[in-house]
Amino acid sequence: MKRRDFLMGSAVAGVASVCGSRHVVAADKCCCDGMPKLAPPEKPAELNLCLQWGAIPGTEIKQKLDFLEANGFAAVEIPSGKWLSDNVEPMKKAMEGRKLFIATACGPSDFSYVEAEKRDAEVAKFLPQLEILGTLKSVGLIICPARSKPGLGFPELREDFVTNTGKKLAEHAAKHGTSIVLEPLQRKETMFLRQVADGAAISRDIGPGCTVMGDFWHMSKEETSFMGAFISAGKLLSHVHIASLKDRKVPGVDGDADNYVDGFKGLKLIGYRGAVSLEGGFPKNADKTQLILNMVKLLREQWAMA
Amino acid sequence: MKRRDFLMGSAVAGVASVCGSRHVVAADKCCCDGMPKLAPPEKPAELNLCLQWGAIPGTEIKQKLDFLEANGFAAVEIPSGKWLSDNVEPMKKAMEGRKLFIATACGPSDFSYVEAEKRDAEVAKFLPQLEILGTLKSVGLIICPARSKPGLGFPELREDFVTNTGKKLAEHAAKHGTSIVLEPLQRKETMFLRQVADGAAISRDIGPGCTVMGDFWHMSKEETSFMGAFISAGKLLSHVHIASLKDRKVPGVDGDADNYVDGFKGLKLIGYRGAVSLEGGFPKNADKTQLILNMVKLLREQWAMA
Repeated sequence: MKRRDFLMGSAVAGVASVCGSRHVVAADKCCCDGMPKLAPPEKPAELNLCLQWGAIPGTEIKQKLDFLEANGFAAVEIPSGKWLSDNVEPMKKAMEGRKLFIATACGPSDFSYVEAEKRDAEVAKFLPQLEILGTLKSVGLIICPARSKPGLGFPELREDFVTNTGKKLAEHAAKHGTSIVLEPLQRKETMFLRQVADGAAISRDIGPGCTVMGDFWHMSKEETSFMGAFISAGKLLSHVHIASLKDRKVPGVDGDADNYVDGFKGLKLIGYRGAVSLEGGFPKNADKTQLILNMVKLLREQWAMA
Repeated sequence: MKRRDFLMGSAVAGVASVCGSRHVVAADKCCCDGMPKLAPPEKPAELNLCLQWGAIPGTEIKQKLDFLEANGFAAVEIPSGKWLSDNVEPMKKAMEGRKLFIATACGPSDFSYVEAEKRDAEVAKFLPQLEILGTLKSVGLIICPARSKPGLGFPELREDFVTNTGKKLAEHAAKHGTSIVLEPLQRKETMFLRQVADGAAISRDIGPGCTVMGDFWHMSKEETSFMGAFISAGKLLSHVHIASLKDRKVPGVDGDADNYVDGFKGLKLIGYRGAVSLEGGFPKNADKTQLILNMVKLLREQWAMA
């Protein structure tokens, strides 16, 4: 799949194609209440497997990208922060002529902006990262707003994020052809954003440049239904993290627990064409490459079953 | 549909039939992560239309129940509070031999227990209501915990509700064969519970005696997908409110806005057999009975399309 196809059919471009200025569905699929209706996707969903930078065997950029292409991966998830600033030109060059697309950047992106006086500083920190991601044609920068503090004033924080802090980031992202990707975490990390449907509603309220992701590991704790969560995200879903479901390692090592079929059904229903990216560890002393290949096989089998 | 069938196949009985002691799915449909998986429902969904007490034409109990049975309704939603205490025996008698079931009780059930010292008093207030609802074979008592206060300590409130306040109510409800029915509202009313998936997760965490409902009106503001929300609720869904989607009146008066097909698809997918109950007003000087009959026709048509 070419990245342009992904962008044309999925969230990042989707947030710019508007229905009532917010929604990401064809106008004829959008009722006058503005709520997207689930309709058969225009293009079928695709399983675009992806690895995070640190999990890819190899040390050089070229080595890592070669490994992905040789082993059935369609996308790569890169670090944000200093690595991103330092490697933008080598990455651009190394990506030339490849079938891979750059999914998200993930890294030191805690967005702990509880104190009002720190909000502008948090925004300023991320703007240059978004510009770089735009030049790399990346899907977006993963952030989770309002990491855990007890007793947060959630109504005010949500309002601020939708109209001010998150809005500024999303507008800048959209201007540079990328997005901010809201990641729901677990309640022990933040009460502010724990479910995909809530991230999707924030994303809808912010508008262009804001998307949402789902992480199977967090979802297994906070959601009641993988499928329901993904359907609620709909075309606002721009990224997915996956891990084994007992111990947050590479899928497959937790046996029967590692069942993603219900979630994959949801992804198929919404015509998802973004990346499904491993965010999980490896057992000690394991053959990492072999476990990655096992994961590819397992996820392809479960995708076919979904 | 007989009420016993509803209870056997749906949430109230479901919360007692356990998978890992919490979930409401057949054991073979439940992965070891404890998350319910969407599988074809054992019984097909049913559209059980319902009216709230005040919206039913007539003044006497018998008149109102006769109207419902004569006009295609399957359930009745009754007031809680003083009305309930005062009318338990007449209602029992009037329900004898009818096909109707008593869905929820809805009324002065604001659950504003922000201050810890008031929590036991709030619980004590609702326990007798739950006992009455049990004798009436009602699906449950609608409550929304933590009505709006700015700056609530949500993590602590959620923990208290799941392990203490809500748990006590749910256990008492289950003991008496009924449930508490969590109603997600809008952010202007409470930030604590605004989405069906969140109510479903709380319901799952509390266990037997706790269910969740969805109100199309609130959902049209707070959700991104009716279908996704209902799928996330799954068998924990015990009640649905419906209204016109522009002005919260009887469905049909807002023209094309009153489209529930996507939501009804979700209800069919989860095999929903609870009530779909009007909670909305009537235009001034309107022919109330005619508008109710129009609604019945409209909702049946849309159910067939879903």
